[in-house]
Amino acid sequence: MQLSESVEWGLHACLALAMMPDGARVPARALAEYHGIKPSYFSKVMQRLVAAGIVQSVEGRSGGLAMAQSAEDVSLLQIVMAIEDHQAFFRCTEIRQKGPCAAASKHYRAPCTIAKIMHQADAEWRRVLAGTSLADLRRSAITQPVPGVHEATQAWLTETGAVRGI
Amino acid sequence: MQLSESVEWGLHACLALAMMPDGARVPARALAEYHGIKPSYFSKVMQRLVAAGIVQSVEGRSGGLAMAQSAEDVSLLQIVMAIEDHQAFFRCTEIRQKGPCAAASKHYRAPCTIAKIMHQADAEWRRVLAGTSLADLRRSAITQPVPGVHEATQAWLTETGAVRGI
Repeated sequence: MQLSESVEWGLHACLALAMMPDGARVPARALAEYHGIKPSYFSKVMQRLVAAGIVQSVEGRSGGLAMAQSAEDVSLLQIVMAIEDHQAFFRCTEIRQKGPCAAASKHYRAPCTIAKIMHQADAEWRRVLAGTSLADLRRSAITQPVPGVHEATQAWLTETGAVRGI
Repeated sequence: MQLSESVEWGLHACLALAMMPDGARVPARALAEYHGIKPSYFSKVMQRLVAAGIVQSVEGRSGGLAMAQSAEDVSLLQIVMAIEDHQAFFRCTEIRQKGPCAAASKHYRAPCTIAKIMHQADAEWRRVLAGTSLADLRRSAITQPVPGVHEATQAWLTETGAVRGI
């Protein structure tokens, strides 16, 4: 079981948008190119983030994508859940209530211990991601930069005119 | 993203085997029927558990399935990982190293913050399941039984002759 690769794309794209100055907008195509991702796949991921109200898409000649919320207010869990579906990892089909020896359904009001522990594991996974904001990621990116990337990004943005609205 | 439904089957099947008296063996077909699962699908799940050394399959007329290890020694994580693949949930394809602004690969020795947090969430999920043994499940099943199931199971086992080797 694995998350789709678009989770990685969405997280990196949100971080890139959160690094932009206020009011800046980047067309989806430029953001895809910046990450070395095929624009057609990438735009589907961004559409999900727009639908979830995490990213905003501004129409028009000077339009593009921007964060719709403050980076402090967006958790990694929100981004991941917007891209993946929101279901729990574990599927409980209540097989304990099936088969020739199952009791009447009224006897199964207490949750199944197996489902309880599996859901507890899910909750711990979510807790870590809910406890990390996009602003936390941005702080790491600023305080532990990869040498040369910031400069290369600034030059690329100027050269391509990918940032609009500022 | 969801675990396959066979995770639920495998966990319940291991619990059922762990409830059997020492030396008892249950044919895969009977174990599938007990859980109301189609035997052909179910046997594939059991084969994975046998391959992982969690369940043993004894050949012959009085053969069948049994736990290969003490219930104290088998964690829920081992069962789940035997059924699902062993990969981490999060796929990191190092997209930070792609695109027009990436630095030389030697600058990416420190792990990506995004991957680090996603893997930390995975580790928390695994921690919960690694910390729960099949014996813990069995204790819950014994101390909080569903009324009538134990008696129905005993009667079914006697009637069908599903348990062998004791």
